[in-house]
Amino acid sequence: MTKMTNQEIEQLIELYKNDVETKAFEYLEKVETKTLQEPFGYILEGGGKRIRPILTILGAGFVGVEHTEALDTAISMEILHNFTLVHDDIMDGSELRRGRPTIHKKWDVATGILAGDLMIGYACKLMPKKELPNIFKLQKTFNDALIEVCVGQAYDLEFNTREDITVEDYINMVYKKTSYLLFSSLKMGAYLGEPSQELIDNLENCGKYLGIAFQIQDDILDLISSNPKFGKTQGQDLVEGKKTVLIIRTHELAEGTDRSIIDKFYQNNGIIKNDIPEMLNLMEKLGVIEESKKLASEYMDKAYEALSNIQDCTSKRVLKYIMDSLLIRTY
Amino acid sequence: MTKMTNQEIEQLIELYKNDVETKAFEYLEKVETKTLQEPFGYILEGGGKRIRPILTILGAGFVGVEHTEALDTAISMEILHNFTLVHDDIMDGSELRRGRPTIHKKWDVATGILAGDLMIGYACKLMPKKELPNIFKLQKTFNDALIEVCVGQAYDLEFNTREDITVEDYINMVYKKTSYLLFSSLKMGAYLGEPSQELIDNLENCGKYLGIAFQIQDDILDLISSNPKFGKTQGQDLVEGKKTVLIIRTHELAEGTDRSIIDKFYQNNGIIKNDIPEMLNLMEKLGVIEESKKLASEYMDKAYEALSNIQDCTSKRVLKYIMDSLLIRTY
Repeated sequence: MTKMTNQEIEQLIELYKNDVETKAFEYLEKVETKTLQEPFGYILEGGGKRIRPILTILGAGFVGVEHTEALDTAISMEILHNFTLVHDDIMDGSELRRGRPTIHKKWDVATGILAGDLMIGYACKLMPKKELPNIFKLQKTFNDALIEVCVGQAYDLEFNTREDITVEDYINMVYKKTSYLLFSSLKMGAYLGEPSQELIDNLENCGKYLGIAFQIQDDILDLISSNPKFGKTQGQDLVEGKKTVLIIRTHELAEGTDRSIIDKFYQNNGIIKNDIPEMLNLMEKLGVIEESKKLASEYMDKAYEALSNIQDCTSKRVLKYIMDSLLIRTY
Repeated sequence: MTKMTNQEIEQLIELYKNDVETKAFEYLEKVETKTLQEPFGYILEGGGKRIRPILTILGAGFVGVEHTEALDTAISMEILHNFTLVHDDIMDGSELRRGRPTIHKKWDVATGILAGDLMIGYACKLMPKKELPNIFKLQKTFNDALIEVCVGQAYDLEFNTREDITVEDYINMVYKKTSYLLFSSLKMGAYLGEPSQELIDNLENCGKYLGIAFQIQDDILDLISSNPKFGKTQGQDLVEGKKTVLIIRTHELAEGTDRSIIDKFYQNNGIIKNDIPEMLNLMEKLGVIEESKKLASEYMDKAYEALSNIQDCTSKRVLKYIMDSLLIRTY
C-alpha cells in the first residue's frame, strides 16, 4: 500500500475539506433572495466533517481524476446531505443541531422547507451536465440517492408508530437513510472517470457497510457513553423514543415481567430519564449490548473487506484512515 | 395554419392528458412505502388541467417528436408542479386544494414535506438521461425551473412582510413562481428534438407572458367575480392578505383619507369581509381595476405575438387553443 504518514493523510483531508468549503461558499454568494441565502449559508457554516464530499473526491482519485475536477460533484453531495438535515430536523421536531438552533427554529418552518428545496436544486445544478463517458450513470447515482434517502426517512417516520420492526427492517432503513449517500458519494466520484464494475461494487459495499456499522455503533454509544464528544447525554435515544437496534432486539427477546419497561417504551414512545437504568439492566441481562457490538463488528469487517479488494492507491489509504476514525472498536 | 376543428383539438388534448395520467399512475405503483405512495397518489389524483405536461408534449411536437416519446419528460414537469403545490400549501398554511384537504392536513406536515421531496426525486428520475443532441440543455432547463420556482416562492413569502413591493417586483415574482414552469415545460419538450434558438426564444416568451397575464387575470377575477368556476368567493385574496397587483397599485396611488383601508390591509395582512366594498370602491375610484385589465391585456398580446412568430403546425394550433381557454378577455 502507498506509504503515507498519518500526518500526510490528515493534511490531504484538510486540503480537500478546505477546497470544498471555499468553493461551496462561492456558490452560496450566487443564491438569490436573503430568505434562501441566509439559511442555506447557516446550515453549511454549521460545520461537520464533510465526509460525503471527501468520499466523492476519493472516489474520483480511484480512477485518476484530480480532486479539483471533482469539487462541484463533491459539493453537490454535501448540499444534498445538508438538505436532508434541514428537512429531517423539521420532521423530527429537533430544536438543536450541532449546538445551534435548527433552521425552522431560528427562522420558521416555511423557511426551512423552502431552503431545503432550493438546496436540492443547487445539488442538481452542481452535478456535471457535460459529455463524460459515464455521465448518465453518475446522474442516475445522484438521482437514486435523492429518492432512497427520502424512502429511508419515510421508514424512519413509520417506525415511530410501528411495533413490529425487525432488525432486518432497521438495517434496511439505515441502508437507505445513511449508507446510500455515503456509497453514492464514492460512486459519483468514480463515475467522473472510467471505473471498472468491480471498483463500483467494492465502493458500494464499502459505503454500505460503513454506514450500517456506524449507525449501530452510534446506537450503542448512546447507551454506554455520556462523552460529550458524541454530542449526547447517556440514554438520550431512550428518552427520545428512538427505535434503535438495541431497542428492537430487547423488544424481541424480553419475556414475562421483563417486558414491562420495553412495553412502556413502545406505548409512550420513549421512557423517562429515571427509567434508563432499568432498561440498561434489561439489555445487559438479555445480552443485547454485546450482541449489537458483535453486529457492528460484522458490518465493520464487511466494509474493510470491500476496501481490501481495491487496488492500493492514495485514495484507498485515505479512505481507510477515515473509516478507522469513524469506526471505534474500543467499547 | 393547419386546419383543425375545435373538436379535433379537444380530442388531441384529451388524448395527451389521458396518456400522461395513465403513465404517471404506472410510475406511482413503483413508489416504495405507503407513507410516500399514498400522498403522492392523492395529489396526482387531485386532477387539474395537466397544462404543464401538455405544454411539454406540444413543445416536442414543434420539433417533430411524437407525443409518446415526450411522456416521461411531460410527467416529470407535472410531478415537479405538484411538488410545489404540496410544499406551498404547507408554507401558506392552506387547508384545502381543489376542494379536498391538503396533504399536511389529511396526513401531517412531516408527510407533506417528505412526499414533496420524493416528488422532486421522481421528477428528476423521469427526465431523460440518455444521448440526445440537446440533453444537457434539457437538463439545465429542468434544473433552472426547480431553482427559480423556489426563488419565486421565496419572494412571495417575503411579500407577506414587505410594504415596499412594486409592480415590477410583483411581475418578477410571478415570472419565477408561475411562468418559469410553463415555459420550461415547452422548452423541455422542444429540447427532446433539435429546436432553433428562435423557436426556443419564442416558446420562452410565450410561456413567460402567458403566466404573467394569467396571474394578473386571476387577481382581477378574484375581485370582480364570485363564480365558483374559479373556485373562489369574491374578494378572498383581500381577506387572505394576498399582495396582488391591484393591492400594490392601490397602495401606490391612494392619498389622504383614502389611505385608511389600504393601510389597514398592509398593517393587518388583509381586511375583514365587511371591509371588501370599501376597498373595491377605492380601487374603482383610482382606476386600478381598469389599469390591471389593461396590463393583463398587454401581456396577453405579448404571449400571442410570440406564438405568431412560430411556424404553423398542429402544436401551434393546440397551444393557441389552450391560451384562448386560459386567457379571458370578456371581463
